[in-house]
Amino acid sequence: MAMCLLLKAFHRLTALSAVRRTRLCHPPACVLSRAMVALPSVLFPKRSDLSLPNSSWGSEMMRLYEHYNGQCEVETQGGQKQRGLWRRLPSYNRSLKYATGGAYLSKIIQSKARFFTRHIRDPGAGFEYVLFSNKEEKKCVCIFQAGHLLEGFPGHVHGGAIATMIDTVTGVHASLIAVPVMTANLNINYRSPILLGSTVLIESSLDTKEGRKIHTSCKVTSSDGSKLHTEATALFLSISVGHLLKGQ
Amino acid sequence: MAMCLLLKAFHRLTALSAVRRTRLCHPPACVLSRAMVALPSVLFPKRSDLSLPNSSWGSEMMRLYEHYNGQCEVETQGGQKQRGLWRRLPSYNRSLKYATGGAYLSKIIQSKARFFTRHIRDPGAGFEYVLFSNKEEKKCVCIFQAGHLLEGFPGHVHGGAIATMIDTVTGVHASLIAVPVMTANLNINYRSPILLGSTVLIESSLDTKEGRKIHTSCKVTSSDGSKLHTEATALFLSISVGHLLKGQ
Repeated sequence: MAMCLLLKAFHRLTALSAVRRTRLCHPPACVLSRAMVALPSVLFPKRSDLSLPNSSWGSEMMRLYEHYNGQCEVETQGGQKQRGLWRRLPSYNRSLKYATGGAYLSKIIQSKARFFTRHIRDPGAGFEYVLFSNKEEKKCVCIFQAGHLLEGFPGHVHGGAIATMIDTVTGVHASLIAVPVMTANLNINYRSPILLGSTVLIESSLDTKEGRKIHTSCKVTSSDGSKLHTEATALFLSISVGHLLKGQ
Repeated sequence: MAMCLLLKAFHRLTALSAVRRTRLCHPPACVLSRAMVALPSVLFPKRSDLSLPNSSWGSEMMRLYEHYNGQCEVETQGGQKQRGLWRRLPSYNRSLKYATGGAYLSKIIQSKARFFTRHIRDPGAGFEYVLFSNKEEKKCVCIFQAGHLLEGFPGHVHGGAIATMIDTVTGVHASLIAVPVMTANLNINYRSPILLGSTVLIESSLDTKEGRKIHTSCKVTSSDGSKLHTEATALFLSISVGHLLKGQ
């Protein structure tokens, strides 16, 4: 009941302003930069962009990061810099805290809540990843290094951790097309297991957008693309926040 | 390369003894009790069964736990106790450490590795769950309380965390039928979101077993069963450990 009231309060508040300007769906990577644009930074606590390199990133993770990051900004013939085909998507461990009015909303809902893929504080222990989007090619690429806390079969990444990354990457991709969205279906085929500690590429491609339905395809491959680990399709529905809360 | 050598060492060692007696697939819940049966406890460090109640369990979690746990042992007319239709499955945060020769194997592979659903130490913050199996009815039931570190859409459980629990519950179920098994397919339909902090029931039913293929169905419902949150099918393949390692 308490939760119900809190959600009603959240609904009212978000209906006023935040929802129209932010992406409430998971993952929140692309929500935050937009919401912050017009607001003085002094209103918000310092936030860490967890998609930037840290000391736990291995050489393969760094190589791929530099490959895609280098294509986010290109130099023209005149020596000037301009936006490239790719864009790095920042990522945080909380969503509402950094959205418009978010510090207040976060306290209303659950002050301790953290985004599932970003709650592990120890660098390299959990999900280390960075996402890049390419609007022209209608795709997203994620470089993912799997930490030792994601174990399933001994020495290998848990199927649920792989599903989590697929949901996250395809969810980001869908939320670049319509917001907010929620996962309606994930159909995942596990082809070959992934070793703990290894770096893989996760690529999401837009298949179709029909009304509220966004269909994407996803592949998880070795970092050089030669080995297929997992392939999946995902269906997302664009929804209103009212629709979400109606179900409580 | 180093990982490759470690896995070869692991392969040789497991081929000698451990594999035939233990379940190497995830989740390891049912592995450990069997492996430990004939071995003196002094050989192993103290281990915590994480499926037992702790202070973070809410009233709904406790009510359901007591309901199923009470059916694990029944009293006969003569006042004697005997095994009931249900069996509680213990659960740990490591697999090999507690299997035959596991303390050694764990060091060889990754001493810091932890099972994905059990790596969060703070009680109530992550996945709180307990599994019960019913051999006659060919089903498994899991009582799951979702902690604040599993957030996706603000205030709700991440789709990946739900997929993780579905993979875990159906994986335990399949591993009661054949070992070792690995997930081949998960097809998940998300019907209605799950609030952070709530307790849900996850039920896995055996559909078919054909050769190496084990098909299960899974439903995630509210704790009273009245509301369907998620439904899924899962396909598992029974494999040899050699088959797994061949793919590296």
